Amino acid sequence: ADPFTIAGTTFASRLIMGTGGAPSLEVLERSLLASGTELTTVAMRRVDPGVKGSVLGVLARNGIQVLPNTAGCFTAGEAVLTAKLAREALGTNWVKLEVVADERTLLPDPVGLLDAAEALVDDGFVVLPYTNDDPVLARRLEEVGCAAVMPLGSPIGSGLGIRNPHNFQLIVEQAGVPVILDAGAGTASDATLAMELGCAAVMLASAVTRAQEPVLMAGAMRHAVAAGRLARLAGRIPRRHHAEASSPTAGQAALDPERPAFPAG
Amino acid sequence: ADPFTIAGTTFASRLIMGTGGAPSLEVLERSLLASGTELTTVAMRRVDPGVKGSVLGVLARNGIQVLPNTAGCFTAGEAVLTAKLAREALGTNWVKLEVVADERTLLPDPVGLLDAAEALVDDGFVVLPYTNDDPVLARRLEEVGCAAVMPLGSPIGSGLGIRNPHNFQLIVEQAGVPVILDAGAGTASDATLAMELGCAAVMLASAVTRAQEPVLMAGAMRHAVAAGRLARLAGRIPRRHHAEASSPTAGQAALDPERPAFPAG
Amino acid sequence: ADPFTIAGTTFASRLIMGTGGAPSLEVLERSLLASGTELTTVAMRRVDPGVKGSVLGVLARNGIQVLPNTAGCFTAGEAVLTAKLAREALGTNWVKLEVVADERTLLPDPVGLLDAAEALVDDGFVVLPYTNDDPVLARRLEEVGCAAVMPLGSPIGSGLGIRNPHNFQLIVEQAGVPVILDAGAGTASDATLAMELGCAAVMLASAVTRAQEPVLMAGAMRHAVAAGRLARLAGRIPRRHHAEASSPTAGQAALDPERPAFPAG
Amino acid sequence: ADPFTIAGTTFASRLIMGTGGAPSLEVLERSLLASGTELTTVAMRRVDPGVKGSVLGVLARNGIQVLPNTAGCFTAGEAVLTAKLAREALGTNWVKLEVVADERTLLPDPVGLLDAAEALVDDGFVVLPYTNDDPVLARRLEEVGCAAVMPLGSPIGSGLGIRNPHNFQLIVEQAGVPVILDAGAGTASDATLAMELGCAAVMLASAVTRAQEPVLMAGAMRHAVAAGRLARLAGRIPRRHHAEASSPTAGQAALDPERPAFPAG
Repeated sequence: ADPFTIAGTTFASRLIMGTGGAPSLEVLERSLLASGTELTTVAMRRVDPGVKGSVLGVLARNGIQVLPNTAGCFTAGEAVLTAKLAREALGTNWVKLEVVADERTLLPDPVGLLDAAEALVDDGFVVLPYTNDDPVLARRLEEVGCAAVMPLGSPIGSGLGIRNPHNFQLIVEQAGVPVILDAGAGTASDATLAMELGCAAVMLASAVTRAQEPVLMAGAMRHAVAAGRLARLAGRIPRRHHAEASSPTAGQAALDPERPAFPAG
Repeated sequence: ADPFTIAGTTFASRLIMGTGGAPSLEVLERSLLASGTELTTVAMRRVDPGVKGSVLGVLARNGIQVLPNTAGCFTAGEAVLTAKLAREALGTNWVKLEVVADERTLLPDPVGLLDAAEALVDDGFVVLPYTNDDPVLARRLEEVGCAAVMPLGSPIGSGLGIRNPHNFQLIVEQAGVPVILDAGAGTASDATLAMELGCAAVMLASAVTRAQEPVLMAGAMRHAVAAGRLARLAGRIPRRHHAEASSPTAGQAALDPERPAFPAG
Repeated sequence: ADPFTIAGTTFASRLIMGTGGAPSLEVLERSLLASGTELTTVAMRRVDPGVKGSVLGVLARNGIQVLPNTAGCFTAGEAVLTAKLAREALGTNWVKLEVVADERTLLPDPVGLLDAAEALVDDGFVVLPYTNDDPVLARRLEEVGCAAVMPLGSPIGSGLGIRNPHNFQLIVEQAGVPVILDAGAGTASDATLAMELGCAAVMLASAVTRAQEPVLMAGAMRHAVAAGRLARLAGRIPRRHHAEASSPTAGQAALDPERPAFPAG
Repeated sequence: ADPFTIAGTTFASRLIMGTGGAPSLEVLERSLLASGTELTTVAMRRVDPGVKGSVLGVLARNGIQVLPNTAGCFTAGEAVLTAKLAREALGTNWVKLEVVADERTLLPDPVGLLDAAEALVDDGFVVLPYTNDDPVLARRLEEVGCAAVMPLGSPIGSGLGIRNPHNFQLIVEQAGVPVILDAGAGTASDATLAMELGCAAVMLASAVTRAQEPVLMAGAMRHAVAAGRLARLAGRIPRRHHAEASSPTAGQAALDPERPAFPAG
């Protein structure tokens, strides 16, 4: 039992899924189940109303909390409006906040993001902002009241993993709210690394939905997040420039009453 | 069910453990259980005979196959002799073959290793050689009849992970026997990466036994190997220089009868 | 002859130096000369007035253009004021703009930086902002009229090099003004890489002034910038997964009148 | 003046060039001159005799020492024979020894290489072996009397740079003869890094001859080697996890008689 908490809500799974990119609704559902996720984003724009119902139905019947996002919003105003529509439509005051600068890079607009976050927090929202990996912006977002920060590892859909682990370390060191990798994970080791760096959770969509076998990759990600979380808790060995035998003196150690010896392998 | 096979023996677990470096026999046993391993090495040299029994007892009562290794051997002759003693003492013709060049680096001696491998194969052993990450030496070891090849990621006990993933790719591409990462894994993401690169299994000791919490790290490694294996099977998304929305055209896709649409997240 | 231009001023050297951290004024002067720099920053705050004169004297007598910076400013207001004082004191409307978020990270404050940049451009300054490596912020700074953008490779004084080459590629692709690596270079290969990624110039201080032998390192950096610039212009070979002989068919090529053959090495 | 010495012969340039892959003899000559090289390899096999003369003429008239290589040899016997033919034909007992395992990878065959090296040293040759990056094999080659060791950074022609800098560090730490990067350099920063890691020189061919502008890249490599060498001698700053101002206390330092203060930039 190692749950994590956002704004007072506790989740057993540290994997947050997205719903875009899957080849079919059926594959999406099986992938979500294989991932073990308990929190999944749904885009409020770019959605066919009739279809939105289907995805929401999948989440509802599997007990997965819906997290509306503002994907496709290019200004603070659009994002705030979209969040409010989502609150009304879905009955949740949670929002994954995206204010992107342009269609080509899908990178967050730092100024618009901060403005929208502040406005939404003031309006009572639980705000989870998709941000760049700048430790300063992450701190500002926390200061205005965001319930988590969600830095990108690399551009959305790029599959380039965490381009700058050092920034993640800096963000985690200072953060008082959960840090969640958002965007960039391409394969399981990316998710494992994120957790080892101290992220509280991992958010991803394309890495699963666009994999050759989405359901298998969903399972991979479930294990990957567990692996990284446990490794973080376990405390890894230090890196050494030179070798160290796993049992350099085991044969002699039997003579030392302080340290019981046994064979080395 | 995704077992792997060495020399006709099938294992459900793809994690091979070592026994050196653990703080106590009790922690070792709990770690081995947490790891799910079915095959574990025991050093035939450097071992206190009374203690060796204890470790062998742990393996026996948990149904874990023992894999004697020749750690501490600096020549082909020493290694061959040690393997023969192990066969006699433990009743197994399997051997993890180590012929190291010196105490400081613990790196394999390529010439001595190849000589010992050939001699042992000729004598009926199932030989799993600890080798450097040279694709040519890996091929030679396979050619003389080794049942697997076990390239190092980085020096023993260094925790530096896989220093040269490119060599692992080259080795895996050409290998007709299982490729098993041996040495260098420091944390879970190293094991995940090894499996993503196509390794059939991962061998490690210090990463678990010397972690601050060995039992937790053993669990981490179990998940890490599963994650990497599933990701390899799933087929990861390609890496892209630029962003790609997880659902750039989801709103329109509903109009396309060939491709069912649903919300993007 | 491969000069570069900022705001209409042309420089033969693509290495911009800082003056902090040197063990003595004499070593500083020799380092600046060894570097070949034609543009060097001087901090307007944190400076002993009597000493400031000495550094300015060094620059003046060696024909190096002074670039006042606003190091030590934590708000847009402080930075704007400092820039104006510098303009008055030094008779230059150029300013390397720094608005940092805190003493510990010395990372730029994105919002304050953008505000100060806009105000200074409006007041007629030639603004060279020290920014994070966010492509969106770099674009915004260019849009408000900055004469260059100076993204950090890693935190000031860390010597960690360019942590995120991918972001530098994205910034260079879109930029209409010179992109100059600022902060993070620790050794020569960092500077070479920056130029290969398409930077127009490199700015550094500690890497030279705090090296064990500052004058030697200044010479190293001069060569490093030249090397990277030439390599960028030369067009590197593509990366290949497999080997390619430098002359796989040289022996036969002599028979091909279209392609003169000669020995391979 | 910072020359380096192989087997008693001193070279002012630390860049060893190859001759394969250039688009024309004229471009080759201009590239060699731009590189400043004083030692250049010529393949003894795969060469049209009439053309070989041309390349040898280029080297001769520019005062560049010829270094015959055994490229294209797949066994120790072939390599030894080729070296002897080269000695007779070119009047030099120097040889860059290549014994490769196969055409596809062009990776060295460790056993054949060691055998050939020993035989050639015994026969009075100055042997410079092209080897993998295994520190143990490098030591063995030195032990049998090689005048230098030439580990690969990555496969010939791949342009992947130094895949395993850690191995280069280990090789340099222990070597009593010059360590020369051979194979893998793709661009200038690869050569700079090699020198920073402690290589005495860099050997390359395709990176220059197959660049879009070979003559420019030759100049880039000349600067790159100089940059890396100077940086190694200068002693780089340590890497720090956090920032360090280039002059955090410069304003106060003026009060310290032990440490003259001056402005920071």
